[in-house]
Amino acid sequence: MDVSLKQVLQAVSEGALSPSEAYDSLKGYEDLGYVKIDHHRTKRKGFPEVIYGEGKTTEQMIGIFTHLIEKHDTVLATRIDGEKGQAVMEAIPDVRYDLVSRTLLYRKTEQKPLHSRPIGILCAGTTDLPVAEEAAITARAMGNEVKRFYDVGVAGIHRLFDQLEDIKSCSVLIVIAGMEGALPSVVGGLVNQPIIAVPTSVGYGANFQGLAPLLTMLNSCASGVSVVNIDNGFGAAYSASLINRVGLEEGE
Amino acid sequence: MDVSLKQVLQAVSEGALSPSEAYDSLKGYEDLGYVKIDHHRTKRKGFPEVIYGEGKTTEQMIGIFTHLIEKHDTVLATRIDGEKGQAVMEAIPDVRYDLVSRTLLYRKTEQKPLHSRPIGILCAGTTDLPVAEEAAITARAMGNEVKRFYDVGVAGIHRLFDQLEDIKSCSVLIVIAGMEGALPSVVGGLVNQPIIAVPTSVGYGANFQGLAPLLTMLNSCASGVSVVNIDNGFGAAYSASLINRVGLEEGE
Amino acid sequence: MDVSLKQVLQAVSEGALSPSEAYDSLKGYEDLGYVKIDHHRTKRKGFPEVIYGEGKTTEQMIGIFTHLIEKHDTVLATRIDGEKGQAVMEAIPDVRYDLVSRTLLYRKTEQKPLHSRPIGILCAGTTDLPVAEEAAITARAMGNEVKRFYDVGVAGIHRLFDQLEDIKSCSVLIVIAGMEGALPSVVGGLVNQPIIAVPTSVGYGANFQGLAPLLTMLNSCASGVSVVNIDNGFGAAYSASLINRVGLEEGE
Amino acid sequence: MDVSLKQVLQAVSEGALSPSEAYDSLKGYEDLGYVKIDHHRTKRKGFPEVIYGEGKTTEQMIGIFTHLIEKHDTVLATRIDGEKGQAVMEAIPDVRYDLVSRTLLYRKTEQKPLHSRPIGILCAGTTDLPVAEEAAITARAMGNEVKRFYDVGVAGIHRLFDQLEDIKSCSVLIVIAGMEGALPSVVGGLVNQPIIAVPTSVGYGANFQGLAPLLTMLNSCASGVSVVNIDNGFGAAYSASLINRVGLEEGE
Amino acid sequence: MDVSLKQVLQAVSEGALSPSEAYDSLKGYEDLGYVKIDHHRTKRKGFPEVIYGEGKTTEQMIGIFTHLIEKHDTVLATRIDGEKGQAVMEAIPDVRYDLVSRTLLYRKTEQKPLHSRPIGILCAGTTDLPVAEEAAITARAMGNEVKRFYDVGVAGIHRLFDQLEDIKSCSVLIVIAGMEGALPSVVGGLVNQPIIAVPTSVGYGANFQGLAPLLTMLNSCASGVSVVNIDNGFGAAYSASLINRVGLEEGE
Amino acid sequence: MDVSLKQVLQAVSEGALSPSEAYDSLKGYEDLGYVKIDHHRTKRKGFPEVIYGEGKTTEQMIGIFTHLIEKHDTVLATRIDGEKGQAVMEAIPDVRYDLVSRTLLYRKTEQKPLHSRPIGILCAGTTDLPVAEEAAITARAMGNEVKRFYDVGVAGIHRLFDQLEDIKSCSVLIVIAGMEGALPSVVGGLVNQPIIAVPTSVGYGANFQGLAPLLTMLNSCASGVSVVNIDNGFGAAYSASLINRVGLEEGE
Amino acid sequence: MDVSLKQVLQAVSEGALSPSEAYDSLKGYEDLGYVKIDHHRTKRKGFPEVIYGEGKTTEQMIGIFTHLIEKHDTVLATRIDGEKGQAVMEAIPDVRYDLVSRTLLYRKTEQKPLHSRPIGILCAGTTDLPVAEEAAITARAMGNEVKRFYDVGVAGIHRLFDQLEDIKSCSVLIVIAGMEGALPSVVGGLVNQPIIAVPTSVGYGANFQGLAPLLTMLNSCASGVSVVNIDNGFGAAYSASLINRVGLEEGE
Amino acid sequence: MDVSLKQVLQAVSEGALSPSEAYDSLKGYEDLGYVKIDHHRTKRKGFPEVIYGEGKTTEQMIGIFTHLIEKHDTVLATRIDGEKGQAVMEAIPDVRYDLVSRTLLYRKTEQKPLHSRPIGILCAGTTDLPVAEEAAITARAMGNEVKRFYDVGVAGIHRLFDQLEDIKSCSVLIVIAGMEGALPSVVGGLVNQPIIAVPTSVGYGANFQGLAPLLTMLNSCASGVSVVNIDNGFGAAYSASLINRVGLEEGE
Repeated sequence: MDVSLKQVLQAVSEGALSPSEAYDSLKGYEDLGYVKIDHHRTKRKGFPEVIYGEGKTTEQMIGIFTHLIEKHDTVLATRIDGEKGQAVMEAIPDVRYDLVSRTLLYRKTEQKPLHSRPIGILCAGTTDLPVAEEAAITARAMGNEVKRFYDVGVAGIHRLFDQLEDIKSCSVLIVIAGMEGALPSVVGGLVNQPIIAVPTSVGYGANFQGLAPLLTMLNSCASGVSVVNIDNGFGAAYSASLINRVGLEEGE
Repeated sequence: MDVSLKQVLQAVSEGALSPSEAYDSLKGYEDLGYVKIDHHRTKRKGFPEVIYGEGKTTEQMIGIFTHLIEKHDTVLATRIDGEKGQAVMEAIPDVRYDLVSRTLLYRKTEQKPLHSRPIGILCAGTTDLPVAEEAAITARAMGNEVKRFYDVGVAGIHRLFDQLEDIKSCSVLIVIAGMEGALPSVVGGLVNQPIIAVPTSVGYGANFQGLAPLLTMLNSCASGVSVVNIDNGFGAAYSASLINRVGLEEGE
Repeated sequence: MDVSLKQVLQAVSEGALSPSEAYDSLKGYEDLGYVKIDHHRTKRKGFPEVIYGEGKTTEQMIGIFTHLIEKHDTVLATRIDGEKGQAVMEAIPDVRYDLVSRTLLYRKTEQKPLHSRPIGILCAGTTDLPVAEEAAITARAMGNEVKRFYDVGVAGIHRLFDQLEDIKSCSVLIVIAGMEGALPSVVGGLVNQPIIAVPTSVGYGANFQGLAPLLTMLNSCASGVSVVNIDNGFGAAYSASLINRVGLEEGE
Repeated sequence: MDVSLKQVLQAVSEGALSPSEAYDSLKGYEDLGYVKIDHHRTKRKGFPEVIYGEGKTTEQMIGIFTHLIEKHDTVLATRIDGEKGQAVMEAIPDVRYDLVSRTLLYRKTEQKPLHSRPIGILCAGTTDLPVAEEAAITARAMGNEVKRFYDVGVAGIHRLFDQLEDIKSCSVLIVIAGMEGALPSVVGGLVNQPIIAVPTSVGYGANFQGLAPLLTMLNSCASGVSVVNIDNGFGAAYSASLINRVGLEEGE
Repeated sequence: MDVSLKQVLQAVSEGALSPSEAYDSLKGYEDLGYVKIDHHRTKRKGFPEVIYGEGKTTEQMIGIFTHLIEKHDTVLATRIDGEKGQAVMEAIPDVRYDLVSRTLLYRKTEQKPLHSRPIGILCAGTTDLPVAEEAAITARAMGNEVKRFYDVGVAGIHRLFDQLEDIKSCSVLIVIAGMEGALPSVVGGLVNQPIIAVPTSVGYGANFQGLAPLLTMLNSCASGVSVVNIDNGFGAAYSASLINRVGLEEGE
Repeated sequence: MDVSLKQVLQAVSEGALSPSEAYDSLKGYEDLGYVKIDHHRTKRKGFPEVIYGEGKTTEQMIGIFTHLIEKHDTVLATRIDGEKGQAVMEAIPDVRYDLVSRTLLYRKTEQKPLHSRPIGILCAGTTDLPVAEEAAITARAMGNEVKRFYDVGVAGIHRLFDQLEDIKSCSVLIVIAGMEGALPSVVGGLVNQPIIAVPTSVGYGANFQGLAPLLTMLNSCASGVSVVNIDNGFGAAYSASLINRVGLEEGE
Repeated sequence: MDVSLKQVLQAVSEGALSPSEAYDSLKGYEDLGYVKIDHHRTKRKGFPEVIYGEGKTTEQMIGIFTHLIEKHDTVLATRIDGEKGQAVMEAIPDVRYDLVSRTLLYRKTEQKPLHSRPIGILCAGTTDLPVAEEAAITARAMGNEVKRFYDVGVAGIHRLFDQLEDIKSCSVLIVIAGMEGALPSVVGGLVNQPIIAVPTSVGYGANFQGLAPLLTMLNSCASGVSVVNIDNGFGAAYSASLINRVGLEEGE
Repeated sequence: MDVSLKQVLQAVSEGALSPSEAYDSLKGYEDLGYVKIDHHRTKRKGFPEVIYGEGKTTEQMIGIFTHLIEKHDTVLATRIDGEKGQAVMEAIPDVRYDLVSRTLLYRKTEQKPLHSRPIGILCAGTTDLPVAEEAAITARAMGNEVKRFYDVGVAGIHRLFDQLEDIKSCSVLIVIAGMEGALPSVVGGLVNQPIIAVPTSVGYGANFQGLAPLLTMLNSCASGVSVVNIDNGFGAAYSASLINRVGLEEGE
């Protein structure tokens, strides 16, 4: 922020900018230079534009997509039901709808992952798949390689152990579970990666729409576990991508 | 119940009992023969008389103990704080106070376990010890052999695997955990014994005094897990003892 | 686990197994011999393969069933709605759909119960029937005899007393109740069997979808009561079967 | 209300009251005659003046008592701890402090109960005694005969049956229980009296300071049960007294 | 209970009953004479047979009604939706369906109220009407006169004051409110009748399906208020009828 | 109130009113003059008659509207779904239905705002629009000018800063947010106007239908924030209008 | 904000400010002129500096007070216990401690209220006094006149009616209640002022530390009621003062 | 894991290890080579041994510390009250107790941070300091540089903006807030670092011991925010350290 502010002031002082031109570029917060820098950075890092689809009509979705793909290489929309997804896909040829994750994705060119190490996505049961795939698609759209470790719930813990070395090769783990949500604790006791835990609303009775696994994960006795909202696969992938980028930046 | 009722009626019919004598023995529910039978059974099976100590004064405790040990071979009291426990122990020499489990126990003679297979008691961390020991002392007082597997929480899951064969030799398992309470799910995925899960109020923040592990255990994805109240080591041991007795009776 | 590990090592030492063969059989957890043993045991004991039907399509159900009945004598599916159940039944002739319990069951041959004593299933009202029947069908599929004591709620407590002797002949009791969920406490005060209590979501207003009877059962003043999740008839029957097997094993 | 308003207007019309005198007697609500009538009625029916003691100092209590006993035959204070109670008793000789119910009571003359039938007070366990006695003392202070049926919890249900005829002789029942709070449901299934249920905060863990029995009682499957606040023995007795008075008035 | 037991024993003693006949009449609880007496009493007092309609099919409803009206003068069913109600009314001519209260009622002959004083039913808003009418129809079916005071919520409190004298002429009051549920407190501060408060699930947001008015009513600062479950108009009327009968019995 | 009471009494005293005429005009509370005065005031201040549409049929809505527009210049109805709104609009030409806010509004003549300063309405995201527009239409119908500041959520806080001066020109602010509901705290830290905060039920998972933003707003660390019920745009505008009128009255 | 930004730019353009001086005055947010303006306004309006005392030591309190009274005419501290309050009062002579409201107040000179109309403070019972007095002292310190209407709870509603005219003379009302919290609804039905409702944690059992009155107030059926946090007398007074100032500004 | 298993098998095959020696090194999970590797890694990375102090006696603390500092370069203990901390510090000279964070720390040699970029710790108010300092000390003990940004709560948001550039220079942010917990949302809208949010139990009333900020943070509308348990400064720092290490590893 400060740099561009100083530059603007210098330009005003030197007459290169009129006070009124300077005012236009400084007015509000956005134009203090700060957001533009960010804008550039976002582009370079492969961050997609993301649309939250819940409550938007098919027409609105098509309009927004048409608008965004003119300016962005990657556009992602989440929480899109099948009918709406199909309609958008038909209207805009290069957009792909994924039924399981309920996402729409546009990529101008297929990009190579920016990071040398993948994000691992673990889920406890097959019913957690929609959340897991929302995370996977988001993570890939944000420039990460993804490794999937599905159906490794604690009720058959040997399935987890079988893949432990592979899991350990990831830089950060997204661990998704419904029911009682014990998986992040077990994984956290076995590995040294940062873990983003995602409770899902899968379950019945005293699961209370995901409250049970949410509390489980918040109380995890294993260190290195932090938690996002119930069913929030997108948010977990976003956090994991920021974490993976910490590596990227350090490595630059 | 029916047998003794028939016998009483027969006796009245035969004049062996007057209607008024019969009335005395039948009036209310207790004297319908049913409770007495139970009484005998209780004795034979080594079931203790149990006192819930919370809210009783030292004087009351001494009075009740003095009264009960005249008629019973085993008397157990739970939820006794240190001061009260010490005072009772001094007043009645044969009573033993245990500081960790906060129990008082009187046994006329040391008894051999009635069952051929032990009850296994697992707990996640050292802070769960008071609950675990309340369970252990109760189970032993009810005529069971007890095997302890402490500090086998999921944060260091190899400790659990090390003792798995030993755990599998038990007839029924009491699995105790605070924090997020994931242990019963993990154990339930590895063994085929019935599991009584006990959430403890150990933890902080969103643990909400044991609510988090309680919900975890009720939602366990592993089959064969049932749950008792928070911190209720006594209740878990009582259930486990009844289960162990199922084996005993079947084996008779 | 240890036994087979020792045997493998001995075989390697003796050259009977190459290190690479040994590695194959030891890698991961599953192949440490432990799961296979379990597999055999499961078969011998009459344990069914169980499918959780919620969220699976008719096609998936038919596929899974076709696959499983090739290898297993008993296959059970729970939480199947009428339409799906009908379709599976028509596609695979030997599978039976039960509308009340919402289960699908395949049994190669009708089997005699493995246990000498039945599991008793009590429920408070007729609205608890679906949960009770899910428990009954599961318990039978797992090799138990079942005795039903339905509509014995505390609002007309004499109905319970009428059947008390019969109830006492069971080895373990599943007690199901909605509304305020008082039945397990009352039964627990009258019998000496282990009780698995099941709260149901039957009720309205401050029942809060089963929370009220769940809390009631967890706080039961009667000893020997443990609790499973709301509406979880399957889980209760699974626990009860494991308990009944304690008797079986003791009696072997 | 209307009567006295009409009378006032008539008096104004006749010049017996000046408009300003009429205004004084009509302004506000209290002086519309209505409250005074009530005042007389209260006195005649033996209703005590009641002080809620929580948060009042010893000096305040003595002051209030001294003031009230000049004008009232019966004065009751609830929620008084031992020290404060002792102090008030010493300061005002005719006031009696009761340690169990934590009440202070002043009665000018011992009065005969106004009602022909007693209020029955049942409680589940001895730990419910303070609430039960608060109810008992309040009910007596309000002119009712009281019958106590203590320690008749559902864990030993025969104790309840033994006293059933006696219980049925009461006009209205106050049923008090902590833990899971099942007693009102059981009693409600056996009798035809109106029942005021009182949950107590006795219990631990998932009792949640009385929430569990509160929900139990609100969801009671037995008809004729209504509920007051947790530990509110006073409120239950007040309601029961109003109910008993319905009988009195009908019988007048 | 004791009386008939004594009589039976006397009869056995005198040979008037064989032990086996006596056994038949004593076995279980129901036949101890106690329930039959109750049966008679119920009839005499005009108590209806009540069916809880939720979850019962039209065919079941018609079957049950046909069966019950053969033996009873009054049959009531609650929680019946419009379609089902219409169908039953067409199948059984003398049954009347009421759309607002969602009840079905059969009365052999129109009966005069048994009580000299009416039950008052107050509700806060027009949306509370279904609950109020369920209470009104139940109260009338149980032999009470009913006075309705609808739409007297605290937002326009003068409507309440206008009818205060009329309200005070009732023996017992049912006060129904959703939203914040303040009406019972206000009424309780103005009258001396016992009040049964009914929270309704009317409202939105932090009303939480009736939890808000439920808590309001349980915490009422006015004495003499007890509470039934959310939306439970039937239960309130049942309690009020029992209370009105206290007057009846006293007056007999 | 007092004035007209005094006048009535004077008139009676002078014979200008008979006692019975006076009684008619004073009976109940409404006619004590007090409500009429209010009535006049309401009219003068431009307060609309408001109908809560939830649960009312199209016919009822048309009837009520027809009735009210005869006597009132402004009539507002909230919580009207599209179909019903369309029908009313067709039946009564001068009524306007607004789809976003789900309101129906009738205004006899377009009125100039009564207040010199506008009410500001801020909302965090586009999904909060229905609540924001319900507030806006209500505020305008009550005689206020409205300024809208939409989509100024904390995730892009510069959008808020851009409009800060404009926001500060309002007399009172309605700040609406779902998700985590942080906006009122941020706004409250920047301005000196009274803020009415409205939590919305927008969000998922641990949002718990608006509970999360509700708690956020109640705990706001910024002073000057008070809160209305979840999604209650109408209530917020009503409060804001009363506040704006404080200025009006002071300025008169 | 924009004004001063424009002025700064103009000054730079004109050479009156060097770019570096301009940078210093613009960097960060505080120095954009905006906060300073606010600072002046605060002073002129008589707003106190407020210290939240919870968790601060006596030494810290004395230090902060000493520091603040040098620069401000009015300094207020809330949530100060008796011992700490006494100590500060002794250390700094002009500071006054108030035991009921638990506040410390320093005023350089006694000021006349800035507003022509008072803030009314109503509370339901005497136990709400500490919250009411915290509100009263805050409101006065912020330059308002205060009228107290204490102990006007709905259990004796005539006390409220007696003072209605006086209540209506206030510009804004703070209405405080514990227990069930019905008072704001009742008041809101009678007056046309904006109401700030304050739930208090006074009560027991299902009051749940103020949750019950909080929900009551949020669901108030009376319009014009907004709510602050439990026991937050300070926050209510702050909101009320901002509202009263709306009048002041309009009137200027 | 597989590598060392293969090596062990090879050694057995070659007779370099006896089966029994091999068994000893393979038995359980720990000795499968996996934990040892981890052990080394832990050391190299500067990870401390951490003791949870709650519930441990002074003697136990001294014993554990004495034992651990023989083998480890860094030993950390959390949740230590002042008295216990003082005692340990006196018993073991090189251990430092920090009163604010309630931690004990032993470091053999002062170490340079392993990472090139610091962890930023932001907190909203001074009452959040204990949690912030627990995080800071943990992060430093785990080999990170720490930058503190305290007292930057949203009520005075300019304080946050002033330090934004500095905040953006950190690799990962820990954002701590009590009350309504809005800070992480605001920060998350301004920066691109991964954020670990920590709710604190600071607040009163409807804060419900940290539940309010916990829900706020889980529902954050800003992406990149994940949450740990209430008051869990240690857990946040542990997660942040793992994240910072992602950078380290990538950069190696």
